[in-house]
Amino acid sequence: MKQTDLLTKTTKENPKDEKSLNAQLLARGGFVDKLGAGIYTFLPLGLRVITKIEKIVREEIEKIGGQEVLMPSLHPKENWEKTGRWDVEEMYKIKDENLGLGWTHEEIITSLVKKHILSSKDLPKYIYQIQNKFRNEPRAKSGILRGKEFIMKDLYSFHSSEKDLDEYYEKVKVAYRNIYNRCGIGEKTYLTLAGGGTFSKYSHEFQTITDAGEDIIYVCDKCKEATNKEVYEGKGNCDCEVKEMKAIEVGNIFKLGTKYSEAFGLKDENGNLIVMGCYGVGISRLMGAIVEVFNDGKGIIWPKSVAPYAVHLICIDGGKTEIKSQSDEIYSILQKQNIEVLYDNRDDKTAGEKLNDCDLIGIPLRMVISAKTLKDDSVEVKERGSDEVKIVKIKELIDFLKHDL
Amino acid sequence: MKQTDLLTKTTKENPKDEKSLNAQLLARGGFVDKLGAGIYTFLPLGLRVITKIEKIVREEIEKIGGQEVLMPSLHPKENWEKTGRWDVEEMYKIKDENLGLGWTHEEIITSLVKKHILSSKDLPKYIYQIQNKFRNEPRAKSGILRGKEFIMKDLYSFHSSEKDLDEYYEKVKVAYRNIYNRCGIGEKTYLTLAGGGTFSKYSHEFQTITDAGEDIIYVCDKCKEATNKEVYEGKGNCDCEVKEMKAIEVGNIFKLGTKYSEAFGLKDENGNLIVMGCYGVGISRLMGAIVEVFNDGKGIIWPKSVAPYAVHLICIDGGKTEIKSQSDEIYSILQKQNIEVLYDNRDDKTAGEKLNDCDLIGIPLRMVISAKTLKDDSVEVKERGSDEVKIVKIKELIDFLKHDL
Repeated sequence: MKQTDLLTKTTKENPKDEKSLNAQLLARGGFVDKLGAGIYTFLPLGLRVITKIEKIVREEIEKIGGQEVLMPSLHPKENWEKTGRWDVEEMYKIKDENLGLGWTHEEIITSLVKKHILSSKDLPKYIYQIQNKFRNEPRAKSGILRGKEFIMKDLYSFHSSEKDLDEYYEKVKVAYRNIYNRCGIGEKTYLTLAGGGTFSKYSHEFQTITDAGEDIIYVCDKCKEATNKEVYEGKGNCDCEVKEMKAIEVGNIFKLGTKYSEAFGLKDENGNLIVMGCYGVGISRLMGAIVEVFNDGKGIIWPKSVAPYAVHLICIDGGKTEIKSQSDEIYSILQKQNIEVLYDNRDDKTAGEKLNDCDLIGIPLRMVISAKTLKDDSVEVKERGSDEVKIVKIKELIDFLKHDL
Repeated sequence: MKQTDLLTKTTKENPKDEKSLNAQLLARGGFVDKLGAGIYTFLPLGLRVITKIEKIVREEIEKIGGQEVLMPSLHPKENWEKTGRWDVEEMYKIKDENLGLGWTHEEIITSLVKKHILSSKDLPKYIYQIQNKFRNEPRAKSGILRGKEFIMKDLYSFHSSEKDLDEYYEKVKVAYRNIYNRCGIGEKTYLTLAGGGTFSKYSHEFQTITDAGEDIIYVCDKCKEATNKEVYEGKGNCDCEVKEMKAIEVGNIFKLGTKYSEAFGLKDENGNLIVMGCYGVGISRLMGAIVEVFNDGKGIIWPKSVAPYAVHLICIDGGKTEIKSQSDEIYSILQKQNIEVLYDNRDDKTAGEKLNDCDLIGIPLRMVISAKTLKDDSVEVKERGSDEVKIVKIKELIDFLKHDL
């Protein structure tokens, strides 16, 4: 993508109404645009990150048998009356209609699967979607971490026994661990014991350590597990010493038991209630958490796996025809090799402005072409977040990148 | 995907509350599930079709420079008050909030691009999204053809002159033509002169001929163009003879001119209002239109390009161990070759039931394995919609498929 074609421009100043770091950096870099409190547009660069996270999540959930569906956001009142959740604070209701907006989908998936799960032979089943959730959130803040409208992966599992649910629950833990590892935040993300809500005594969250977190957790670095303050009773799961830390919840997994099966009469051929689990990952929140973890004073430092582009190619002194044409050629070579590249071909920006924008946007590999580098038939390559500059001959560039990307 | 793992079951009876053929076939085959009037879930098979249509649409829109974004569905009242469209019938409003649900996005995209399009140097720009639209639709009917919640691709273009808009408008016509060709309905789809609403005198629709259509158009088969009844004045665009036909609108393109630029003050550096166009394709409606065009008494006949799977592998007499193990092996060979295959491995269905389900679901290539075919080390292959049965040796199967798919 040529930067002259890209819709967005960066800004130097932080938006006045954004207090959280992720919102400031994502807005300044042109990843998101705030339409209202807790309501954001994903701009071209931001949507590329979202799409990469979604791909990772789909792959890991399908590895453990997940089948993707897409449920509606408009929900009939009658579904929610069956569980007594129609009048909860979270629910946005449509004026003059018996319709609400989905902030979760237990009431919809349970009535749906009832038409297809008819006997224990049809179990287990694992159904997921990636979809917009709506939540009446008076405290909308922290950028895309807590929104009124947000992208979520929600997986629901259906089992013939508690034991089968327990086994699948462990598989989901592994899948989630893979997701956070692949998104680059694995080391900072802890399986965390949390409250079970109205379903059961406990559930588990995945919490990512960062000062921007709204949750307090007690972390045991030896056991690599944590306990949420809400259920912490002076000691963690283990007997080790724990540290109190701030964290962002980037996923949660629940054993629902038979609560929803009972409300909707979801039974097998022998009249046994079907046992359920549910498992969420906030996709847009995960993007925000990644930004909170990976940044410096200059901007974002995207992990390679979710970066909007692999290479930021920057042409300096592009006013000079020979430099411009060499840059254009390198851009076209990279594209032919299917290397994802953002090309700063702007001729109304100084070198300093371009390098600052590059740091702000945070693409993993910066590649600079200038009169100086071309004298050596080279480009200058630097990883975002590192100070080491490498000089790479143009004819060796593709080999270098194939090795490095 | 093994059919024993697939969430959905087919049904023989049409749903009582579905009158349109697309809704009946899509529900019976397990592609969609009706949650309420005009509100549908896309089930695993249906979402695969939607995903394939979306991929085609993305490719064609990006060929003409489209950059993808994702705008919210929750819209602040103030955006819509600027154009006087807050109180239109289409708008679902959230109870007790100054928020409505987006049934189109001119009011959002125009205020968004104003932050990034600052001068004529930033033009033209082409911004699109694929996203759920919500529309208060008291006449919700015709299955997924007219819903309260539906998937739409909406593209918006921004230009420095009417002439530039006119040129891009012609490029969009070509892109749309490519989309319908690739989805298999090209020959039945006509560029159709239609009313321009409040924007201009005329716009264009793409109308697909089918008896299920709610629109009446006058078609000239010689010029391959049509005129919508709403603007028809006794003759078409040409002097040829025309036929009156029923059709489904599968896309529309509008020259918006400066209506929205004026409302939001979207101007270049010289104070000239920016000229806009907008271009829609109803993704879920397109799926319904494809079903209305391609079906027979037995079920759907998916075009290859949008079929949920390429091959429906059917094991008959799977109770016999040697047949089952041969089928399993062929399934695994096809998967290793990345051939998309639905595998009917059910052992509680008769051959007749399996072949009926196969016709209903409508995957392009049926591949039957039975005692009879295995005697010749073969499988029996038949295209959906054709009566010709081919016997293919198992060892030649991959070559056959690579040639045929």
